[in-house]
Amino acid sequence: MKKSLVVAVAGATGAVGREMLSVLAERNFPASSVLALASSRSAGSRVPYGDDELVVRELTRESFRGVNLALFSAGGSTSLEYAPYAAASGCVVVDNSSAWRMDDRCPLVVPEVNPHALENHNGIIANPNCSTIQMVVALKPLHDAAGIRRVVVSTYQAVSGTGQKGIAELESQVRQLFNGRDPEIKTYPHRIAFNCLPHIDVFLDNEYTREEMKMVHETTKIMEDPGIRVTATCVRVPVFYGHSEAINIETAKKLSAREARALLATAPGVQVCDNPAQTMYPMAVDAAGEDAVFVGRIREDESIANGLNLWVVADNVRKGAALNAVQIAEELLKRDLLAVRAPDMFVK
Amino acid sequence: MKKSLVVAVAGATGAVGREMLSVLAERNFPASSVLALASSRSAGSRVPYGDDELVVRELTRESFRGVNLALFSAGGSTSLEYAPYAAASGCVVVDNSSAWRMDDRCPLVVPEVNPHALENHNGIIANPNCSTIQMVVALKPLHDAAGIRRVVVSTYQAVSGTGQKGIAELESQVRQLFNGRDPEIKTYPHRIAFNCLPHIDVFLDNEYTREEMKMVHETTKIMEDPGIRVTATCVRVPVFYGHSEAINIETAKKLSAREARALLATAPGVQVCDNPAQTMYPMAVDAAGEDAVFVGRIREDESIANGLNLWVVADNVRKGAALNAVQIAEELLKRDLLAVRAPDMFVK
Repeated sequence: MKKSLVVAVAGATGAVGREMLSVLAERNFPASSVLALASSRSAGSRVPYGDDELVVRELTRESFRGVNLALFSAGGSTSLEYAPYAAASGCVVVDNSSAWRMDDRCPLVVPEVNPHALENHNGIIANPNCSTIQMVVALKPLHDAAGIRRVVVSTYQAVSGTGQKGIAELESQVRQLFNGRDPEIKTYPHRIAFNCLPHIDVFLDNEYTREEMKMVHETTKIMEDPGIRVTATCVRVPVFYGHSEAINIETAKKLSAREARALLATAPGVQVCDNPAQTMYPMAVDAAGEDAVFVGRIREDESIANGLNLWVVADNVRKGAALNAVQIAEELLKRDLLAVRAPDMFVK
Repeated sequence: MKKSLVVAVAGATGAVGREMLSVLAERNFPASSVLALASSRSAGSRVPYGDDELVVRELTRESFRGVNLALFSAGGSTSLEYAPYAAASGCVVVDNSSAWRMDDRCPLVVPEVNPHALENHNGIIANPNCSTIQMVVALKPLHDAAGIRRVVVSTYQAVSGTGQKGIAELESQVRQLFNGRDPEIKTYPHRIAFNCLPHIDVFLDNEYTREEMKMVHETTKIMEDPGIRVTATCVRVPVFYGHSEAINIETAKKLSAREARALLATAPGVQVCDNPAQTMYPMAVDAAGEDAVFVGRIREDESIANGLNLWVVADNVRKGAALNAVQIAEELLKRDLLAVRAPDMFVK
């Protein structure tokens, strides 16, 4: 472990960036100093870091000199522009955008699932999409035991997945409606208050959204098994924090609900919450602020021979983004991988 | 057609009962008189019927003398108690509760799907569960063309499905939260405001909810094909009106998204709303107050050979309950079936 680790958070003023600073402080990440970076617009403002405050500095190509580790949550185009310069400076990047996730040169990592993928990193490591992270944490122990062949997932995604502007949009639309005014539509294509939008990220040529295809492609990359077929419907719901997912799986080997529950009970990062008689099941309001991926409603799917249904909930800003990125950083430290082998790989 | 048709609505003060009266008036159902019936608690109150008001009378075993048709939306136990006496009086009952749905003596009817099942009715006809109605309206044309083998459905159900107390609960919890108070929990087991509850109706021994098993069993009865295997996850979401459903189907014959769209475009009761490029897809807020079942996000499921995904939305109080019951009544009239052949069949 390096004696004096300098850590930067790029996109420090966003919902995920703030949570990254909060998680770094709360887990006592061994940083000798932490830099908060954001666009010039935010430079000079302050963000909390534990009991302290950090003055936000402008993100530039030169920001990463002498920095050992950078957590990026600044959007895909910012990441494409600046992460290569960070890596070129010898700074290892953990990036929360979708920019590098399907790049063969970049590991896509959920520490509970494929930490070994970090061993061959080239300076930029991708943090998966929030809905994918919580799904693979729940599916990994079942896949190891019974071989998942197919996944049908429907999501119930919180507005915090869109960042602070998503949270503000739901809040202001609810206030407007409850005061008899027309809700103003700014962030989403349609009203989100008391509505469900089957539309997250942009539509692609195959009529799926990019969010849906992220769940398809990222799952096979993280699970390292192209034999897992995934189909997804991603839906934004009027919830502030916490993504919920109805997940149906088909396995090669039969798994009873009881066996699945036992496997999940000892799986890393999972908390089983499954006692219908006591009306106990995972819920977004309970998951908010928590580290675990909560799994419940575990039941055999009687429509096929080897099927299971699960209800999986996690804090999308935390395990779905900031916490997972910090866990990757912790794993890099533990494995002594905080060095860039080929600094110029990503600079064009 | 009878010259002077007397119609009763039992449970006339509830959310669905009021909508039944509204739909009867709006569609000019040929009633010479309409009786509003409810529990003794509501007797003497008034409910709207078109431009008029009706005085609510107490529901008793004698309420149905001289009544030709009764639409019930008064809960399962009330229906079990009074519907047999209505039928014994020669009054045809269309019942919205779950009491008679799986009874072999009672047809379970969605007029767009299996109107012929009315031909052999015995005085009590069951109106299906709201989530099932909108699903089978969308699935019927696809089943006829390609043979549906399996359905995986996840629902996003509005609080109006719980009646007026569900609507009141969401509204008051939102007000309390926005005023910094703890939300009071009365109707649902947990907070519904800004949350998702994977729990509708009671839990059964197989760990599914009764709502989920209704979707399994009612679908095969209405579609008259036990070969259709269904698995469901039913979820309450903080939406006032309009149930949404993410439906994945596997068919015997390959159907392209384009073929499915063409079949649905001419299907009775369906409105296709599927233009992602214009951000057009079905939404709860648009479906509220409408008759149609809206279908969109029609796309091929690349995880299996013959799979499709659909997003189906309808007004749960309207097509999911009141409108479907009135459409059954219209079909009974059209087929001259407003008579009870075996009046004592259901009286114990």
